Amino acid sequence: MTLADTPEPPYVAVIFTSERTAAAAGEDYARMSAAMTELAARQPGYLGMESAHQDIGITVSYWRDEDSALAWKQVAAHQAAQQRGRERWYADYRVRVARVQREYSRSSSDFAD
Amino acid sequence: MTLADTPEPPYVAVIFTSERTAAAAGEDYARMSAAMTELAARQPGYLGMESAHQDIGITVSYWRDEDSALAWKQVAAHQAAQQRGRERWYADYRVRVARVQREYSRSSSDFAD
Repeated sequence: MTLADTPEPPYVAVIFTSERTAAAAGEDYARMSAAMTELAARQPGYLGMESAHQDIGITVSYWRDEDSALAWKQVAAHQAAQQRGRERWYADYRVRVARVQREYSRSSSDFAD
Repeated sequence: MTLADTPEPPYVAVIFTSERTAAAAGEDYARMSAAMTELAARQPGYLGMESAHQDIGITVSYWRDEDSALAWKQVAAHQAAQQRGRERWYADYRVRVARVQREYSRSSSDFAD
């Protein structure tokens, strides 16, 4: 997992944060997670993904526009993973859909403002 | 660290993602990070924060509006931490400022759409 190289804004970020159950420590969760990461990367409008898990899990996926983010949400295999997540893996979660308006990086002088 | 209970959108999310240096494993980074978390929570317009670190670090802070997010960026102690981060702790990073437009949670029937 490295940082996503997204294009110039605007684009869409889907911020998924979760508290996982003990069941999420299992093999089936790891398999689903890897499969969804790979499947997302093949969707139209996919721009990148960043993910980390410690006390809570955070996955931010980046999309060209709202339509491509929504289309990914509705891909059948992803719907099945979401369903299983609600049933087994997530004690709690939030999904926030946001429009990225500005981006700074290490090399950006804007950040020093 | 638990999930942030943010209000109804719209509000602002600042997505900070980083690749840390070996120096970030030290005590001074942990101290700075804890101090900034506490200081952020006392700023006007602060709505919450979610953070996890694994291969990469992800911290999402939530703000009432762009002005409160920008004001936090410019708080002197935070400026000093950012400067030290650029010098010592972050091999690479991205800061994305985004406007949250929709939010779903575990109890939200919208998510099943």
